[in-house]
Amino acid sequence: MPDPLGITPDVPLRVVLVSPRNPLNIGAVARAMSNFGLTDLRLVNPYDVAFREARSAVRAHYILGSAEVFDSISPALADCSLVVGTTAVGHRDLHLPLYRLEAAGELLHQHLSSSPAALVFGSEKFGLSNDDMSHCHWLLRIPTRAEHGSMNLGQAVAICLYELRRNAEAARTRFDPPEVAVAEDTELITSALLDLLTRSGYVNERTSKSTELKIRRLVRRLRMPASDVETWRGMLRQILWKVKHQQQD
Amino acid sequence: MPDPLGITPDVPLRVVLVSPRNPLNIGAVARAMSNFGLTDLRLVNPYDVAFREARSAVRAHYILGSAEVFDSISPALADCSLVVGTTAVGHRDLHLPLYRLEAAGELLHQHLSSSPAALVFGSEKFGLSNDDMSHCHWLLRIPTRAEHGSMNLGQAVAICLYELRRNAEAARTRFDPPEVAVAEDTELITSALLDLLTRSGYVNERTSKSTELKIRRLVRRLRMPASDVETWRGMLRQILWKVKHQQQD
Repeated sequence: MPDPLGITPDVPLRVVLVSPRNPLNIGAVARAMSNFGLTDLRLVNPYDVAFREARSAVRAHYILGSAEVFDSISPALADCSLVVGTTAVGHRDLHLPLYRLEAAGELLHQHLSSSPAALVFGSEKFGLSNDDMSHCHWLLRIPTRAEHGSMNLGQAVAICLYELRRNAEAARTRFDPPEVAVAEDTELITSALLDLLTRSGYVNERTSKSTELKIRRLVRRLRMPASDVETWRGMLRQILWKVKHQQQD
Repeated sequence: MPDPLGITPDVPLRVVLVSPRNPLNIGAVARAMSNFGLTDLRLVNPYDVAFREARSAVRAHYILGSAEVFDSISPALADCSLVVGTTAVGHRDLHLPLYRLEAAGELLHQHLSSSPAALVFGSEKFGLSNDDMSHCHWLLRIPTRAEHGSMNLGQAVAICLYELRRNAEAARTRFDPPEVAVAEDTELITSALLDLLTRSGYVNERTSKSTELKIRRLVRRLRMPASDVETWRGMLRQILWKVKHQQQD
């Protein structure tokens, strides 16, 4: 399989589209596969044989070029020991276990660590038929809201591949707020600001002590990043210089 | 805001598209928002003013109809206390914290529980400019592979909204395998199969004992669901009847 991007797919996942109608969607599927490092695309009975020209397959033509086309679903799944169908509906009698994508992702991960699997998507208009579903071990559903469950094909594939690529560890990464300035630094800012405000006539002699406390609290509440202290001091110095300079005019 | 689907958005998240060029992408964004229960779409300087006709906004025209259009980014963000930009690149000097989507989703969740936030996407061709990014508190990146990081706009939005809708609890749902038949039932299957194989000439007298053990192990390894035992017994009975019937012909 040609792979101009030099990727060796280590995940034996086949993306199978049954009766896709819109070449733009097929192209979007190929692009999402390239984004997430998959290459094995299989098309069952595509409506438009010109799909390989799909304009939306930005930088993913190598996937369309090597996509396999089948007349029926069975041979497209032949080498897969797990076949997972996708559905937007929860209400009809599916005769199969149905999992939310979050849980399905974990199950697919476990299987893919040792064996190939297929992820099967139905046509844009009708989804998977009962016949298609009879080839599946179980079904997954993206947790869209019940009132509008049906997703665009390209978006549905992208979300499924993201879930597989998703790293639970990364979700536990916490915001690392910038180091906050120490008191010595905030005091320098407070003094500079107070000096400037006094020269500007904001602070008057009678209330200067209470204003000083107010300014100190204001500056502290900013939680100024330590790395920004020097920039702020420079700006305050420059303004102070201008205020003094104007007074001398 | 008209909402024909009767959804009250409880998540104060604004989706902001800066200089989107393709009405199909804008429509796809609206559709994904509808899929995941969001309604507040804002467009900054869209390239095509006819975006409200976007054909790809299946069942999401109410979102396009109420989308707000702005000439510049600042007013589009005015009521948001957190502004999160999106980027496909990790290499250029962004001057901002950059988080993977998994972590960004948790941070957004925390913020959205009390205050509005904006999720900002740049144009299809150029992404967010440095000027756009200067309005952001931090950036997120979908974990695409480095060699092909840039996603289709509609797919990128769909993935971000999925991450926000995602339920970590659901991921811990484990496969609930069907209850496996008890030994009494598998023994009935074993007997029926052995009977059938004997009458069919597969089992011969000399080796019948070892064959019986082999058949029992074969049946046990099937891990037949308890609820399927009767169906299998019925099929075996019918075949046995036919085999007997043919012998009488």
